[in-house]
Amino acid sequence: MTDRLAAQFAFLNEADKLKSVLRATTLCDGSRRENSAEHSWHLALYALVLADQAAPGVDINRVIRMLLLHDLVEIDVGDVPIHSAGGTAHGSSDVQAAEAKAAKRIFELLPMDLGHDLHALWQEFEAGETPDAVFAKSLDRVQPVMANLQSGGGTWIEYAVTPQQLEARVGAKVTRGAPALWTWVRAQALDWFAKV
Amino acid sequence: MTDRLAAQFAFLNEADKLKSVLRATTLCDGSRRENSAEHSWHLALYALVLADQAAPGVDINRVIRMLLLHDLVEIDVGDVPIHSAGGTAHGSSDVQAAEAKAAKRIFELLPMDLGHDLHALWQEFEAGETPDAVFAKSLDRVQPVMANLQSGGGTWIEYAVTPQQLEARVGAKVTRGAPALWTWVRAQALDWFAKV
Repeated sequence: MTDRLAAQFAFLNEADKLKSVLRATTLCDGSRRENSAEHSWHLALYALVLADQAAPGVDINRVIRMLLLHDLVEIDVGDVPIHSAGGTAHGSSDVQAAEAKAAKRIFELLPMDLGHDLHALWQEFEAGETPDAVFAKSLDRVQPVMANLQSGGGTWIEYAVTPQQLEARVGAKVTRGAPALWTWVRAQALDWFAKV
Repeated sequence: MTDRLAAQFAFLNEADKLKSVLRATTLCDGSRRENSAEHSWHLALYALVLADQAAPGVDINRVIRMLLLHDLVEIDVGDVPIHSAGGTAHGSSDVQAAEAKAAKRIFELLPMDLGHDLHALWQEFEAGETPDAVFAKSLDRVQPVMANLQSGGGTWIEYAVTPQQLEARVGAKVTRGAPALWTWVRAQALDWFAKV
């Protein structure tokens, strides 16, 4: 059991590094950039509170687990902002390959059975095909929109984002997993764009 | 539905403030103090990874939900370090009353049904009597021990903590919910105390 606990804590101590990975998005008060650990917490809370927006059959407990794990690969790869490089960097094959390599390294710190299960859950999130993963990815796209609305524009100003780009890069993905949610959020985002 | 979403986001936007509440404990690399949002994420990950340390019948999904919510009251009250004021501040009746008031304010931002459910879950955690709450509280006590071991002493140095105080303030609570885990962690803590 001692070896097992040592492996569990090798992973948990490594995970601590996610608190030092900075995202493009700021806190809602604009005071500083958000890190990927507190972002992951906020998203898990989104899943808990917005569960009624999920399609029938979505397992919110699995969604929460996915969201707790989804950004761990950024310990090696860093955050790739959705609006950076004209929207082409996020999800590029280079980034995907680097993230796959990071996932292998990080989940292999765990005891083999547990590492296998959590790695598979991360891969399911990444693939974005199951109902649970589709809903999780919707929330991952919505949360920065709310932060930008609260902070007065945030990354939309920084990256000179247009409403059309927001729809393509964010809206399409949110709509897949939580269509009514995007209708509500889009209305507020368009209000903001109309005023700048 | 629009009013419901407005209430859900009033809560989620308010929750963002937890990212600005600083704890006494530092990150594992000692670079800065940890905030309560990223601490809550780390604890939820602890629950996911250390589920095999829970007593039979503990529902890890409920434990994760409790841990996501457990520190929200610190938005109003701040963090009360376990070793501060000679170990007497944490859990004092004044702090408990302030936290209960904060919980009421924060959970009442939500739609009534959801606010009631999450408030009840927070109260269950606070009371620390059910198997799920007991295990959640064990993890809440263990994580700062691991941070101190990684960072070279941390709050043990800052508050001149003795091994006896650690056993009384931390060990007793961890043992209640995860006895084998404390045996393993205590051995490492005692090694550290033997060297200073």
